[in-house]
Amino acid sequence: MPTPDHAATPLAADRPRYLDPAAPVDARVRDLLSRMTLRERVGQLNQRMYGWNAYRRTPDGGFELTDALYAETERFEGLGALYGLQRADAWSGVDHGNGPGAEDAAALADLVQRHVVGRSRLGIPALFVEEVPHGLMALDGAVLPVNLAVGATWNPELYERAAAHAAAELRARGGHVALVSALDIARDPRWGRTEECFGEDPYLAARLTEAVVRGMQGEPGGAPAGLFAADKAPVVLKHFAGQGATVGGRNSAESELGLRELHEIHLPAARAGIRAGAAAVMAAYNEADGMPCSGNRALLTELLRESWGFEGLVMADGLAVDRLARITGDKVSAGALALNSGVDLSLWDEGFTHLEEAVERGLVAEEVLDAAVARVLRLKFRLGLFDRRGTQAPPLPPLPARGRELSTAVARAAVTLLRNDGTLPIPATVSRIAVLGPQSATVAHQSGDYTAPQHPGTGTSVLDALRTLAPPGVDLRHAPGCALTGGDLSGIPEAVAAAAASDLAVLVLGGSSARTPDTEFDANGAARTAVSHMTCGEGADLAGLELGRAQYALLDAVAATGTPTAVVLIQGRPHVVPDTAGALLTAWYPGPWGGEAIAEVLLGLTEPVGRLPVSVPRSAAQLPVYYNHKDTEYGGYVDGSAEPLYSFGHGLSYASFEYGPPRLSGHTVEADITNAGRRHGRCVAQLYLRRLRTPVWPRTLELCGFRAVDLAPGETRTVTFPLGADLPGRGTVVEFRVAESARAALTAVPTQSFTAPDETPL
Amino acid sequence: MPTPDHAATPLAADRPRYLDPAAPVDARVRDLLSRMTLRERVGQLNQRMYGWNAYRRTPDGGFELTDALYAETERFEGLGALYGLQRADAWSGVDHGNGPGAEDAAALADLVQRHVVGRSRLGIPALFVEEVPHGLMALDGAVLPVNLAVGATWNPELYERAAAHAAAELRARGGHVALVSALDIARDPRWGRTEECFGEDPYLAARLTEAVVRGMQGEPGGAPAGLFAADKAPVVLKHFAGQGATVGGRNSAESELGLRELHEIHLPAARAGIRAGAAAVMAAYNEADGMPCSGNRALLTELLRESWGFEGLVMADGLAVDRLARITGDKVSAGALALNSGVDLSLWDEGFTHLEEAVERGLVAEEVLDAAVARVLRLKFRLGLFDRRGTQAPPLPPLPARGRELSTAVARAAVTLLRNDGTLPIPATVSRIAVLGPQSATVAHQSGDYTAPQHPGTGTSVLDALRTLAPPGVDLRHAPGCALTGGDLSGIPEAVAAAAASDLAVLVLGGSSARTPDTEFDANGAARTAVSHMTCGEGADLAGLELGRAQYALLDAVAATGTPTAVVLIQGRPHVVPDTAGALLTAWYPGPWGGEAIAEVLLGLTEPVGRLPVSVPRSAAQLPVYYNHKDTEYGGYVDGSAEPLYSFGHGLSYASFEYGPPRLSGHTVEADITNAGRRHGRCVAQLYLRRLRTPVWPRTLELCGFRAVDLAPGETRTVTFPLGADLPGRGTVVEFRVAESARAALTAVPTQSFTAPDETPL
Repeated sequence: MPTPDHAATPLAADRPRYLDPAAPVDARVRDLLSRMTLRERVGQLNQRMYGWNAYRRTPDGGFELTDALYAETERFEGLGALYGLQRADAWSGVDHGNGPGAEDAAALADLVQRHVVGRSRLGIPALFVEEVPHGLMALDGAVLPVNLAVGATWNPELYERAAAHAAAELRARGGHVALVSALDIARDPRWGRTEECFGEDPYLAARLTEAVVRGMQGEPGGAPAGLFAADKAPVVLKHFAGQGATVGGRNSAESELGLRELHEIHLPAARAGIRAGAAAVMAAYNEADGMPCSGNRALLTELLRESWGFEGLVMADGLAVDRLARITGDKVSAGALALNSGVDLSLWDEGFTHLEEAVERGLVAEEVLDAAVARVLRLKFRLGLFDRRGTQAPPLPPLPARGRELSTAVARAAVTLLRNDGTLPIPATVSRIAVLGPQSATVAHQSGDYTAPQHPGTGTSVLDALRTLAPPGVDLRHAPGCALTGGDLSGIPEAVAAAAASDLAVLVLGGSSARTPDTEFDANGAARTAVSHMTCGEGADLAGLELGRAQYALLDAVAATGTPTAVVLIQGRPHVVPDTAGALLTAWYPGPWGGEAIAEVLLGLTEPVGRLPVSVPRSAAQLPVYYNHKDTEYGGYVDGSAEPLYSFGHGLSYASFEYGPPRLSGHTVEADITNAGRRHGRCVAQLYLRRLRTPVWPRTLELCGFRAVDLAPGETRTVTFPLGADLPGRGTVVEFRVAESARAALTAVPTQSFTAPDETPL
Repeated sequence: MPTPDHAATPLAADRPRYLDPAAPVDARVRDLLSRMTLRERVGQLNQRMYGWNAYRRTPDGGFELTDALYAETERFEGLGALYGLQRADAWSGVDHGNGPGAEDAAALADLVQRHVVGRSRLGIPALFVEEVPHGLMALDGAVLPVNLAVGATWNPELYERAAAHAAAELRARGGHVALVSALDIARDPRWGRTEECFGEDPYLAARLTEAVVRGMQGEPGGAPAGLFAADKAPVVLKHFAGQGATVGGRNSAESELGLRELHEIHLPAARAGIRAGAAAVMAAYNEADGMPCSGNRALLTELLRESWGFEGLVMADGLAVDRLARITGDKVSAGALALNSGVDLSLWDEGFTHLEEAVERGLVAEEVLDAAVARVLRLKFRLGLFDRRGTQAPPLPPLPARGRELSTAVARAAVTLLRNDGTLPIPATVSRIAVLGPQSATVAHQSGDYTAPQHPGTGTSVLDALRTLAPPGVDLRHAPGCALTGGDLSGIPEAVAAAAASDLAVLVLGGSSARTPDTEFDANGAARTAVSHMTCGEGADLAGLELGRAQYALLDAVAATGTPTAVVLIQGRPHVVPDTAGALLTAWYPGPWGGEAIAEVLLGLTEPVGRLPVSVPRSAAQLPVYYNHKDTEYGGYVDGSAEPLYSFGHGLSYASFEYGPPRLSGHTVEADITNAGRRHGRCVAQLYLRRLRTPVWPRTLELCGFRAVDLAPGETRTVTFPLGADLPGRGTVVEFRVAESARAALTAVPTQSFTAPDETPL
């Protein structure tokens, strides 16, 4: 147990109640609030600095604080929250030479916190807020596969463990609050942040959002009196809401989405995360029904707080408050609009720094401001920040080993086999393998956006892993063939020669979200001009969904050799890739050790168990594609199908499965599934509902359950889906189907129809 | 004056009031309703038959009625409405050999009407409803340019005259009600019905919708007691609402549109049309906010009738009522849902035939049914159908001449010059012109979907017109080069040879909405499988926005000759066409005489005055593109711009214009425009507003006025825009810009800011 800082001193009669660790959190908040000046309160709502501007390395290898931090804490006589003290990437310019690593991050956090507490008349500590989109985005943080890969695992339990690890890392290094991508739904793969989505489906996203909340925060009520355990971190679920629906897949552009679509597709993950106890949400950049989320009272207050009963914090996205000045006329009124709409804590904005003036001008009522301050303070009390020295949690088990193990496990569960004519698993007869393609021998592009610089040698490429895992005597030849981007074909002959001289080619293609020092950034860290190889990530939207030109030439040339070829895609979104190779699999961005997971699947050491969390389009011209569109008959375009190339839920196994007809019994659906193949396999049985009689127009199908089932060859098991609280509203008549993908469900045998009982909530 | 049928008899004391032409329409309706059985009333709400099944040609060249018509009139003891008695196209199978032409259509209508009236106990005539999307779609009907071309004219006065002609044709031939495309807004050019839209902008569409209503129906109140003049036709504005927003440009698929977007973009044309007195609207296939429009009470009743005060008729789109059985369970309840939602008159559906049963089952209240019947009857009384023998209006002036003149005038006003390096107008020095391309020498593909078979020789191709209009001595060579679709390159060498041997090439490319006998159709007449050359029109959505492959090869090959080339596009939507030629113009589907309009512009006999009513995208991958998106900054895709290739409002002249800074004075904006060129020219000055302070997130720009200004070389004129009732809501602060396109307006000097006064309606 950490030593409580103030509690260690005997409680004096005149000791303020907010310093009494035994007092209820709400009482402490009220007491503290009553003692604070307006300026101090406004200070709590500001999160202005980039954390990396708060410190610098000293010549002796320690850290010292900067004048920028002094000025900031002077301005508001304290500090509300500090963003990204540990962030390290090309945008922040932080690397192993100047930033905090696993060994000294906690000391840096402690140094800053002591300054903040000392500068604050009432001893109020700061919240340290860090990016945790796929692991802790800090030096030595264990990088996880991106959310799209997590979506491909269909495995919330596994992700919960990985998320718990990331939270423990964060807390062990002095961080407090995790910014977590979870709520964006991937409806347009052009969007560069598709990689941050769990997929296109609200049910799948909801289950994974619950998992990340449980993993990072612990079970609701698991900690006493709303306190977070020392290895747990409150999450800010981002983004709220509808950002996946921006037109054209354009980052932070508008959505034209209807409220019904918003509620049915884009809000369920948020609802589930909040029910799981999420401490905070981040208001999204995009508008919803006419107003950017940061200025959207209907969304942040009427829906979130009044209708859903959310008592947590709402944080703005970076500079989103200031953007509101476009319609309010100035940043003071922009800040007032955001606060009045429901934003509690700003990010980098000027608008919230003027809230004193906004109160004086009558734009903001003090009660509204105080309610926001109370939410910030409440989180600090729940984190125990007033009650223990510094920010250190108990030491964790050695981080890299556990992190690597979990990251690789998620990557392994995410590898998805889309097509296979028998090329895979690599047969024992193969003795010469050509390992080709721009993604085959590097780990630099295996991780998602925001990733911190990695120590040399961290990670495993496909080539690395095949060298380790291929049977002895197998000859591996390697040629990159081309770069990720551009049309330089000069490397192709070497790759073709290697393919021609081999029994099998593994061609690793893909995209990249790797930020390099020459990437230019917007003030909010979004990539502005994609240079080098960055074709994905925040600010890198890709209209045509195409790989670099040379990659297609390489694919064609390798396929033309006639050597059996397995194409592996390492990518942050679906790309358009012609079906010219015998086998095709996608690992999304599998993280640093993804090469190992991929090689295991290629060699058949692991079964491919990933399933598509998004539909894979045939081309950008047919967008949007997602399985759960409204149930309208459509024959297709003159020049092509409107159906995706690969369906949501699709993913092959090395085994094959037969699904018996589903049986409806009371509030349970069950079906018998048989492994009809000759290998052990895991199927992901998917339960879909189809609305038959309903007051609004239904979707074709809606995922409402999934279960992984391990089956030995010839084995049959009954998979059981209890029908839960997510069922449709009363009186609605539905049927259920159990299938191995959304497309298979279209023609699957349904259960008899089921009328939702009166007590079922909508 | 026509002879009143019943009124000719002296009014007997026991003569029912509904037969008294002097009685007010509403009193006549009430009286008639009170006399009708339930079956008779249900009959009035049905429009089940395809009109071409009601008659057949006799060996002597006359017409006789069919058993199908007898059965239909037997079933409901009369006939509510009959669709498409005059429709002639590949779907109906009607052509000059078997269908009614200008000379005998009125007699056919009279024959049918006499049967209907005779079969009806109370002598209730039928409504004859015909397609008039771009002129009367009947044999010998004058075909007009499609709506997209009308949008390009920015000339409501001209279109009003053309619409008046079409209505007069309809009435002269015994038709009553015109189905008119007007309300769909072109937001996704993949949609095959883009050609039926006036463009992407709600203001432009609203002005043209008013024009078609005024032209066809006459001024509101212009006829006594709500009666229509004998040469005027009530219009059914279609479609209501939001059909231009279906996802993926997929015909009659769902929209995911928000209500705010619906109101701001998709409803203004309907609102304007209704204010202009439109007699009816057609409920659209798509859903809006979760329900197909035909079952959408919020739209058809709460908005349209209760909020807007619309007292006219709502017609369903073809088979749209029956589609509702998907969620109600059967067609009886589907009919009940549609009627209860606000549909008055069905189209081909079975659902409405069971309304007696629906009443008996308690699904429909008789008052609701009677209100719908009253709306149908009211229209019949307003048309004078009870008061004159048959359906004949006074003879019109010879139709073809007047129709041709108006059609050509609209086509001339629509030709839009997108790019010109000086290739056009064709210089006097040119003595050899190659007229190339699959659209250069045929009129078969110059008209939009629904077009009736034309007499051989009707129309003028570009080649025809150049032969007539080019100066004596100019040598014209022609080669088609390729077909509209497919990749057959065998004709290209001939075209290249002609280009190489000429001083200038005119290359006429494009798409086609021509239905041929081998087109397959859905039950509602939408093309199901596009065969032959049909790549546009209802049911022919084009994902890639590409011309036939060979057309690109032809363009490249002709451009490579170095001969100055003008590309002319004849098309129903924007296609992706690279900027390889020196001049590019689009005529949309200009109608049968479009070749003449195009040739005049090519030769400089007419100034190009068309302006784009839609943004022209660079590719399908960047969709959506429209100028009036929300005002969010977006830097572009990694692989290309998010901006269109050509902006809404763009169109070059052979002159050039300079715009002075706009002046705001009271409720007027004015600007001085100078012709800085060496030719007479007409500019279309466009007034855009930009919202500065506003309660919801604004669009970048909004068109709110336009004026064509004719200017001699060197001449300056002041263009004046009175600010009207369409201004934003009170307190909103805006500025105005006057420019020659939306893109130019982005950087144009604004007026001082303008605060909308309190009395301005939203």
